[in-house]
Amino acid sequence: MKRIADSTVRRLSLYLRFLEAFEREGRATISSGELATSGGTTSAQVRKDLSSFGSFGKRGMGYSIRELTVAIREILGLAHDWRVVIVGAGKIGAALAQYAGFRDRGFHVVGVFDSDPRRIGLALDGLTVADAATLEADVRQLQAEMAVIAVPADAAQSVVDRVVMAGIHAILDFSTASIAVPPTVTLRTMNVAVELEILSFALTNR
Amino acid sequence: MKRIADSTVRRLSLYLRFLEAFEREGRATISSGELATSGGTTSAQVRKDLSSFGSFGKRGMGYSIRELTVAIREILGLAHDWRVVIVGAGKIGAALAQYAGFRDRGFHVVGVFDSDPRRIGLALDGLTVADAATLEADVRQLQAEMAVIAVPADAAQSVVDRVVMAGIHAILDFSTASIAVPPTVTLRTMNVAVELEILSFALTNR
Repeated sequence: MKRIADSTVRRLSLYLRFLEAFEREGRATISSGELATSGGTTSAQVRKDLSSFGSFGKRGMGYSIRELTVAIREILGLAHDWRVVIVGAGKIGAALAQYAGFRDRGFHVVGVFDSDPRRIGLALDGLTVADAATLEADVRQLQAEMAVIAVPADAAQSVVDRVVMAGIHAILDFSTASIAVPPTVTLRTMNVAVELEILSFALTNR
Repeated sequence: MKRIADSTVRRLSLYLRFLEAFEREGRATISSGELATSGGTTSAQVRKDLSSFGSFGKRGMGYSIRELTVAIREILGLAHDWRVVIVGAGKIGAALAQYAGFRDRGFHVVGVFDSDPRRIGLALDGLTVADAATLEADVRQLQAEMAVIAVPADAAQSVVDRVVMAGIHAILDFSTASIAVPPTVTLRTMNVAVELEILSFALTNR
């Protein structure tokens, strides 16, 4: 498969949300124009995004919502569930561990880890915070495929190294650190401080 | 000032983090190469990013960490504090309201709102969750400049419309909705579900 840009994958993920909402409303078909409006893009972009993956829809008939939903879920790898560990059970980690949205979308949190004795043993929505001392062994034993990192910046690289060592190839990092990973590992970062600073810049320079 | 790309602003925000860490270690100067390594980029990119804003550093001498820190904080609009409201006091909103990292970076959470009677009145780190019914008036009275939206997807657009009506021009949205704002408003989105789906795609197609 040819390399697909992150921005395309991001739009597919958004299209999927609107398709699901339309399906809940009982709709059967949708035009590329409607999908474009929902996604804040153009019909041409929608058709281009989808054509990378196959032939969907009939000219003048729109797309079958059911068919397109199944196809996009398949493309995004959501046809099966993923096993996720969360490292760091502070405010952000704990909020994520208890976030029902994960489960609903097929991301099963199978373990939560922390190195702080005050947090180890805490119950979070059916999971118990485990000691990060045995992280590598536990990640393997839990057969986790993704890791969410919610530890302080100065601990983040070492935690990332350890989950990578344990065989994890997909990481979502909430720390404010700059993290290096091997080329075989996909790292996504969500940095609230950076986003706020982009807003601060925008307000200052508008 | 000419239009600066988001990616440049994002890197400035990262450089600032490393400069602050170096300053804490007692360093006085830094080369563009060191800054590039920390930021996962090249010396040429660092020089280009900084040259958009003025003349920093001397050839062969590196940058003065103190001077560059002050300059970047100024560029990003961090020389003064910002007043932030959080709308939605569920797990994510509550975690954000109590996140010390906000205050440390000059983002003061001055109000937290929710429409759920079970949440209104809850104490969150010195703030009390207020009734979102009077959001517009309260946002004005609090002189808030930024809003963080952490409400369910189906409520997000209406909440965004209300804070915009109340004079907010900078919004960080954690909902999974696709939000429209007027061109005078800067909207940044942090969507955990989309990031996880990008990881799912990467694992599926590697």
